[in-house]
Amino acid sequence: MPKKVAVIGLGSMGYGIAQSILAAGHQTFGFDVVAAQMHRFRAEGGAEGAREDIAATLDAVAVVVLNAAQTEDVLFGPQGVVPRMAPGSVVMACATVPPAFAREMAARCAEHHVHYLDAPISGGAVKAAQGALTIMASGTAEAFAAAAEMLDATSEKVFRLGDAAGAGSAMKAVNQLLAGVHIATMAEAMTFGMTQGVPPETFMEVIPSCAGNSWMLENRGPHIVDGDYTPRSAVNIWPKDLGIVLDIARDAQFSAPMTATALAQYEAAAGMGLGGEDDAAVAKVYARMAGLALPGEAS
Amino acid sequence: MPKKVAVIGLGSMGYGIAQSILAAGHQTFGFDVVAAQMHRFRAEGGAEGAREDIAATLDAVAVVVLNAAQTEDVLFGPQGVVPRMAPGSVVMACATVPPAFAREMAARCAEHHVHYLDAPISGGAVKAAQGALTIMASGTAEAFAAAAEMLDATSEKVFRLGDAAGAGSAMKAVNQLLAGVHIATMAEAMTFGMTQGVPPETFMEVIPSCAGNSWMLENRGPHIVDGDYTPRSAVNIWPKDLGIVLDIARDAQFSAPMTATALAQYEAAAGMGLGGEDDAAVAKVYARMAGLALPGEAS
Repeated sequence: MPKKVAVIGLGSMGYGIAQSILAAGHQTFGFDVVAAQMHRFRAEGGAEGAREDIAATLDAVAVVVLNAAQTEDVLFGPQGVVPRMAPGSVVMACATVPPAFAREMAARCAEHHVHYLDAPISGGAVKAAQGALTIMASGTAEAFAAAAEMLDATSEKVFRLGDAAGAGSAMKAVNQLLAGVHIATMAEAMTFGMTQGVPPETFMEVIPSCAGNSWMLENRGPHIVDGDYTPRSAVNIWPKDLGIVLDIARDAQFSAPMTATALAQYEAAAGMGLGGEDDAAVAKVYARMAGLALPGEAS
Repeated sequence: MPKKVAVIGLGSMGYGIAQSILAAGHQTFGFDVVAAQMHRFRAEGGAEGAREDIAATLDAVAVVVLNAAQTEDVLFGPQGVVPRMAPGSVVMACATVPPAFAREMAARCAEHHVHYLDAPISGGAVKAAQGALTIMASGTAEAFAAAAEMLDATSEKVFRLGDAAGAGSAMKAVNQLLAGVHIATMAEAMTFGMTQGVPPETFMEVIPSCAGNSWMLENRGPHIVDGDYTPRSAVNIWPKDLGIVLDIARDAQFSAPMTATALAQYEAAAGMGLGGEDDAAVAKVYARMAGLALPGEAS
């Protein structure tokens, strides 16, 4: 049955999610601080209406913003949707946030009889637009049931990680730890190889069939070989996401030296003015320190 | 045509290589500082003879020892084989060594008219015994030709990385950098997840289909889930191999912070008395610092 859905946050991930929900036949509103993104989505068939006017009529809200602060503002800020939403409706929260924050949001939603699905996403902008994300979800059976059509429309794989908010966000943090460290390590290994006469394209020919391979190496390595730093996912994601990991780690008194070291490399990249480039640009930190010219750079 | 071959170094990798060459129908001598390994190999069909007596009659020597110092001793030490070998025979050097060392050995072999194939290996003991290694090889066309039967017998994939010794060892160092960092990162992520309520078995169910996956995560993670630290590849490999990477990096004035951080974790594992355990035991460094009980440990 077609649902009435709002997607709040129309960045690269949120826009793809809104498109996927719209394509599945649901009445879909798209909201963003950038008005041009809202107009673009309406031109593609998005529904018309002000957020505060339509909130009470929604079956579901997907929140695809940058972090916990923006999520809280969208849900409970001055224009917050949750106090306006109908009992039995659901919030599907997709940002990378600390597990404790997800638990707090779920409890506050419950006070308004609104379900909360802790639903961080993985897969990138291309898969978001294809409705083929991986979702690491946790929440009550009622939250899963209320969000079923949105999960169907947006994902190719849903991991059901438990019956309470927090477990999804915990797994997302674990995944981001690995993904962020692996990109920095790929950059370190590729540039290290260059100092020993291994060209980046040979690296990419050999390593994917060796024990040193990673998902991120195969995904991001070609960006360096091609000298193409168009941001599929930007450097600036990592100070945020690895910062979340280290915030959680500190609260748990957990020592995470690999994460902390990778974070320092992304911070260096941002400090060099590369924050808006593709995250493979962390290789430029290594290259500039070692006096190497990456593909596409003048030597 | 059957060849006359010696394998020097019958550890877990060398023994499997010797078995594979023997199984391919070649007359195969096996030598090791541990006499029991030599007797075991002779009982399986290995040829009889003292190293200095048979050296002049060999077509090829595979050197599968721990490091550069042992390789040099085997080739040019008091009992060194190269000065005794016939012109046109070949040394296939499989240890992880610095590229500059490989170039030096090739030059010294050339003085004796002996070919040198820089041929570090990847794949582990199981693949060594199956004759299914990946070999990262470089050397002259003559070296490749002279080693052809040995490569056939021992590998499922040979990367031909150039016509001079050194390129193979450079690629091996790159691969070891990645592999060593990825194991430590897997351990960090898995134990971090435990602090957030993600059990190791759930970690292994979810992450292999997410962007955080690596070859080493899929290979070593199950050892932790099973609480099985039988050494398929031991912790002690990594202070050696990451030490080689950092030696090379220092000579190249290359800053490798991810490698240095991972090395510190393996050194901590060795310092805790875990050097002989499977390298997945680096997870115990994290677990003990965070007060976590890994699977199979009393909580």
